[in-house]
Amino acid sequence: MLVLITYDVNTQDAAGRKRLRQVAKQCVNYGQRVQNSVFECIVDAAQCKIVQHELEAIINKEKDSLRFYYLGNNYHTKVEHIGVKTSYDAEGVLIV
Amino acid sequence: MLVLITYDVNTQDAAGRKRLRQVAKQCVNYGQRVQNSVFECIVDAAQCKIVQHELEAIINKEKDSLRFYYLGNNYHTKVEHIGVKTSYDAEGVLIV
Repeated sequence: MLVLITYDVNTQDAAGRKRLRQVAKQCVNYGQRVQNSVFECIVDAAQCKIVQHELEAIINKEKDSLRFYYLGNNYHTKVEHIGVKTSYDAEGVLIV
Repeated sequence: MLVLITYDVNTQDAAGRKRLRQVAKQCVNYGQRVQNSVFECIVDAAQCKIVQHELEAIINKEKDSLRFYYLGNNYHTKVEHIGVKTSYDAEGVLIV
């Protein structure tokens, strides 16, 4: 199934910037970065639970947030993209 | 239906920062900001087309991107949130 993961990490301090890098790095193991803080992951239910637990362990729940959107298996018609398609590397740095 | 709008706007110059504010301001007319660049909009098909055209007219397609995820009407079980719930104002500034 397609699981969309979006996150907001508070990067006001160095610890936050580290969390942001760790979240992005972990998401890369499961899916494709489609925007700066948006990943699309093709996972089964078990893998989904694992990535949730991993990300939950990284973030500071008082400062950061994660959202998971479950788009099922028939997701091809449920997604539309407009504009530039950018490639990102695993460290969260934009590759131009 | 629930339509999720996510966006990446290149804010390297003043024009980009203006586009970012405009995109956020437009999205606020249609939905709820749930993360910095993520809006959830409850719209019908006609409204969805309108917001798409409006946002498409704001962004620079060579620098920015929009993604639309169509989550249908039975979306309550398709969304999960972990961590802080933050309120944002219409100008894209984080309200702490």
